[in-house]
Amino acid sequence: MIQAGAIYENQYFLGTSIARPLIARRMVEIARKENADAIAHGATGKGNDQVRFELTAAALAPDLQVIAPWRDERFRKAFPGRQQMIKYCKRREIPVQASAKKPFSMDRNLLHISYEAGILEDPWMDAGNKKYHGSFTTLSVFPEDAPNKPEFVTIDFKKGNAVAVNGKALSPLGVMKALNKLGGKHGVGRVDMVENRYVGMKSRGVYETPGGAILHFAHRQMESITMDREVMHLRDSLVPKYSELVYYGFWYSPERLALQSLVEESQKNVTGTVRVKLYKGNIMVAGRKSPVSLYNPRIATMEADPTKAYNQDDATGFIRLNALRLKVAAKVQRKK
Amino acid sequence: MIQAGAIYENQYFLGTSIARPLIARRMVEIARKENADAIAHGATGKGNDQVRFELTAAALAPDLQVIAPWRDERFRKAFPGRQQMIKYCKRREIPVQASAKKPFSMDRNLLHISYEAGILEDPWMDAGNKKYHGSFTTLSVFPEDAPNKPEFVTIDFKKGNAVAVNGKALSPLGVMKALNKLGGKHGVGRVDMVENRYVGMKSRGVYETPGGAILHFAHRQMESITMDREVMHLRDSLVPKYSELVYYGFWYSPERLALQSLVEESQKNVTGTVRVKLYKGNIMVAGRKSPVSLYNPRIATMEADPTKAYNQDDATGFIRLNALRLKVAAKVQRKK
Amino acid sequence: MIQAGAIYENQYFLGTSIARPLIARRMVEIARKENADAIAHGATGKGNDQVRFELTAAALAPDLQVIAPWRDERFRKAFPGRQQMIKYCKRREIPVQASAKKPFSMDRNLLHISYEAGILEDPWMDAGNKKYHGSFTTLSVFPEDAPNKPEFVTIDFKKGNAVAVNGKALSPLGVMKALNKLGGKHGVGRVDMVENRYVGMKSRGVYETPGGAILHFAHRQMESITMDREVMHLRDSLVPKYSELVYYGFWYSPERLALQSLVEESQKNVTGTVRVKLYKGNIMVAGRKSPVSLYNPRIATMEADPTKAYNQDDATGFIRLNALRLKVAAKVQRKK
Amino acid sequence: MIQAGAIYENQYFLGTSIARPLIARRMVEIARKENADAIAHGATGKGNDQVRFELTAAALAPDLQVIAPWRDERFRKAFPGRQQMIKYCKRREIPVQASAKKPFSMDRNLLHISYEAGILEDPWMDAGNKKYHGSFTTLSVFPEDAPNKPEFVTIDFKKGNAVAVNGKALSPLGVMKALNKLGGKHGVGRVDMVENRYVGMKSRGVYETPGGAILHFAHRQMESITMDREVMHLRDSLVPKYSELVYYGFWYSPERLALQSLVEESQKNVTGTVRVKLYKGNIMVAGRKSPVSLYNPRIATMEADPTKAYNQDDATGFIRLNALRLKVAAKVQRKK
Repeated sequence: MIQAGAIYENQYFLGTSIARPLIARRMVEIARKENADAIAHGATGKGNDQVRFELTAAALAPDLQVIAPWRDERFRKAFPGRQQMIKYCKRREIPVQASAKKPFSMDRNLLHISYEAGILEDPWMDAGNKKYHGSFTTLSVFPEDAPNKPEFVTIDFKKGNAVAVNGKALSPLGVMKALNKLGGKHGVGRVDMVENRYVGMKSRGVYETPGGAILHFAHRQMESITMDREVMHLRDSLVPKYSELVYYGFWYSPERLALQSLVEESQKNVTGTVRVKLYKGNIMVAGRKSPVSLYNPRIATMEADPTKAYNQDDATGFIRLNALRLKVAAKVQRKK
Repeated sequence: MIQAGAIYENQYFLGTSIARPLIARRMVEIARKENADAIAHGATGKGNDQVRFELTAAALAPDLQVIAPWRDERFRKAFPGRQQMIKYCKRREIPVQASAKKPFSMDRNLLHISYEAGILEDPWMDAGNKKYHGSFTTLSVFPEDAPNKPEFVTIDFKKGNAVAVNGKALSPLGVMKALNKLGGKHGVGRVDMVENRYVGMKSRGVYETPGGAILHFAHRQMESITMDREVMHLRDSLVPKYSELVYYGFWYSPERLALQSLVEESQKNVTGTVRVKLYKGNIMVAGRKSPVSLYNPRIATMEADPTKAYNQDDATGFIRLNALRLKVAAKVQRKK
Repeated sequence: MIQAGAIYENQYFLGTSIARPLIARRMVEIARKENADAIAHGATGKGNDQVRFELTAAALAPDLQVIAPWRDERFRKAFPGRQQMIKYCKRREIPVQASAKKPFSMDRNLLHISYEAGILEDPWMDAGNKKYHGSFTTLSVFPEDAPNKPEFVTIDFKKGNAVAVNGKALSPLGVMKALNKLGGKHGVGRVDMVENRYVGMKSRGVYETPGGAILHFAHRQMESITMDREVMHLRDSLVPKYSELVYYGFWYSPERLALQSLVEESQKNVTGTVRVKLYKGNIMVAGRKSPVSLYNPRIATMEADPTKAYNQDDATGFIRLNALRLKVAAKVQRKK
Repeated sequence: MIQAGAIYENQYFLGTSIARPLIARRMVEIARKENADAIAHGATGKGNDQVRFELTAAALAPDLQVIAPWRDERFRKAFPGRQQMIKYCKRREIPVQASAKKPFSMDRNLLHISYEAGILEDPWMDAGNKKYHGSFTTLSVFPEDAPNKPEFVTIDFKKGNAVAVNGKALSPLGVMKALNKLGGKHGVGRVDMVENRYVGMKSRGVYETPGGAILHFAHRQMESITMDREVMHLRDSLVPKYSELVYYGFWYSPERLALQSLVEESQKNVTGTVRVKLYKGNIMVAGRKSPVSLYNPRIATMEADPTKAYNQDDATGFIRLNALRLKVAAKVQRKK
């Protein structure tokens, strides 16, 4: 997903979306082990998660039944909303994080934490207001509360995967943990948006994705010197589709796999090191280098070129042939 | 361009690119008035600008000759690089901004200023280093030098166009000036990237686009509550193509016009107000509202729904039919 | 739709799909006139038509209820399939075209007739077999039964619309009637395919679209000399999406309108005359001409070029700059 | 290329385009073997072939020089057009196929033969006229001259590759030869078109691709029952880009490889048998079957469904959720 540069509607790092197929796959594995003939989930009938869980189950275990109690009419009547459910849990002493004090929904995993519903339902409400500085800060501080001193981080990539942070080789899990800590400290990766759910309505969410944001940013910087122009433009034109598939829950679909093949092929030279600077909510690039860099300053330079890689005379022909169809059309249309 | 959400390679706000067709159009107008049979430009044979100027001329005045002295072999020998040209200008007392002290190229207009070449040609060089805090700060300060207090701005949009800032109706020029000032003060819209030139090589650039960055951000926020999901996803999938056309210089091309028709149609309900918060390099959303908002919290809510707009039973069928092809494939493949 | 070049899955001329929104719009108009609070349709719960009718109603009259009796569980029990329904109609003396003799579903309108279900459900069954030469020949003969003599037809286009057949100015209705007659006589526009329904399953259909096939073919020929290359390639890349929207029933959707704007812009010079030859199932081109043709044989010629429109030296530079990124990558990768 | 369904501008089977990279690769191999420092080709400066040869050389042997004599100004003056070249060859007794009698250019390989230039340069000229029945019939007859009796052919596919014809296992070469013979006999795969060259102008060509046309047709039929809907629609939206790459000569480019990965992934279940009927220029389907068919008549049937794979009640929810955004928009806009 990082290799695809997938960001839903240009804002959302897909933190919850990408987790659901994994959870559902594990549910299926356990169901198989236990000889169960059904799996269940607690998602409501209004959100994206029900779709993500159930599409994954359909693809991996088409014979398993899926039970979604809270979408069931009977239980919907007993618990028409989150308020009634919270009360019920309290009465039955079932521990839940949502409360009167934090009247919104939360979902957390390695990649992010999301907040939605409750007071967030008013899109004019400023979730960055001082009074919320304790509310939406599970994984990161507000930029205003971040250190006054910037911090530099280097990330090494190998074939599009981050393999080391600050020179230290790390597992994917280690990379995420290290970047989450750094990003959280400097208040980066905070998103507040109104997004389009797959089930048809718009919805407002607040997200913290500190490490994921750094990873996305650094990965694109790595690509900028190692990826071919046409491959990048092609891949980028498919990002909205890829992101949509992840967001909608079609991770285990043949079309996601087809796109993934293209993405993987695009990453085979995305290798090198990126240096970023974190400062009060900002991720800034401070350098990129690669043993397979396609950036050659001797070609690009505006100074005298010691190599013969680029002959400026060629530009004349390049432009003229690219202009030919425009000229012909201009003449035909003027005549007319 | 703002309506299209066009950002080249996800980073560059196209500040120079968009200016070239305008300059070339004006050159053509003046050439016509003066009965000239040629126009000239001073761009080198290595950059994008020559293409942008000449494609525009081809489309608007296919009969006009274009003279590009610095691409001419004769002059290239006399001035193989920028160094020789700067010396020549000094000797002839021709005032130019580039100098030994600022050994890089600059290009400025209402939308942005760009820096490239010279010391920027090393992609590992950190252009954000303290020692450059006087160098790349024509239109904006570095985030570190921005005020410690956030500032809020409201922008009103009408059919995708920003028409007022902080409640004051402004012309497009007025909007740009107001946002440039605000953005510059808070250090937003600073970009450092390696990009792919149309003539085939990669190139490193540093850009300041303070107002443009705010405009892009706020416009997308406005769209988030007023634009249909499918329109947004379709438009977004065409952004790489549209951005490429602007960057390459095909502003006056039939394919840009075709895309523009789609973009314009997509904007007819992008009307309302966005509130953003500027703080040390960050542009954050602090609210969005619209008289034609498609966001309806009563539908999206996780609480009891007073309307009957959404029946959760419908989700069951929605998911099942979307899962059908996945189930059939899973069964066929397993059998096999 | 013709201007968009829309053919679903490269085979289906969308004859039924395009008719449904029109029918539904008329239903809505009548419902309004009669102060009805609901509309009804007889489509089953398995096909595309229910979706097309109901999405149209949703877009045009979101408050109107839709009743779909045959999708209703009660009636599904009474009439589990077409067989039971045919019997019922017979008993009640309700005239229907389907019968024991023609055990398949039919749908006919100005643009086409479709056949599906019944004996067609076996995809290995050859619907072109002699024994069916009376069955699937409502609007056209089988190629084998068409005249032995070819027939020529000229079609005039104006901004992408067919406006005359064989030199005679005709209304859109007149064009369709004339081309249906000609195409039907020569057995063109016959399609046999397995397609993907929106509701998730594959389905086999046989279609006769004699006039529509000619129109599509001739229109593309007209475009071939009047449409810019980049516009054509861009438009063509959007055909699958556009066709999908029509097939799925999203005619009255904002994304179809956005695409339509692009398509309309692309057609402004699609003007001229195309001559086609019809012969035993074939539509062949026999000539195209246009007052705004972009085809200039003096530029394209392999003979000496009297004009100076094209300088072959330019090709060298054109190729070299297009090759630059390939060369750089080859060198970097080889070194590595 | 067949797996990609690549047809340039919806008409051209890319017979010449696909051959050029192969020829150029072989040239490079021989140049390496002979320690040559340059390769040469005889293409003119106006066509696509020069680009295809030279881009291939750039990608495979960036250090090799390319010599293109007929694009060289010196030789252009000696031989301004094909006429002068034909005369020269005659004088020097160099055998060439072009002549006064066949005043057009020809290019032939296993996949096709192309004709362009000369008398074909008038796009109104009917290349199907009786008088040309000996001219453009190297690989196929005109439909009018084909047998009066249809002929049936079965083609077996394995993972998207044709592996047998009429039940007989064949190599790829064997498949092409067998289908060329069959297709040629029945006059299929004949194309007459005006196409857009990469160097900027339009050009008219006539092509015979008998076997290739059958292969394309049969392959799509095979896909129709074995390929997932979303994979097909995604792949189809990329066909214009893929075709463009092949036509322009970017076979050995990273973006073609990226697309190829997607195409390959899409083919892993395209296995089975297609039966086609050839008759006087027509390729018609007469059956398709597959051990991994995704077409399940018991789900698609309009008759009573013995399985429980599809519950018609689900359609109600499916449609309602798909209609939600249309309804919300309709209400907001009406209110406004």
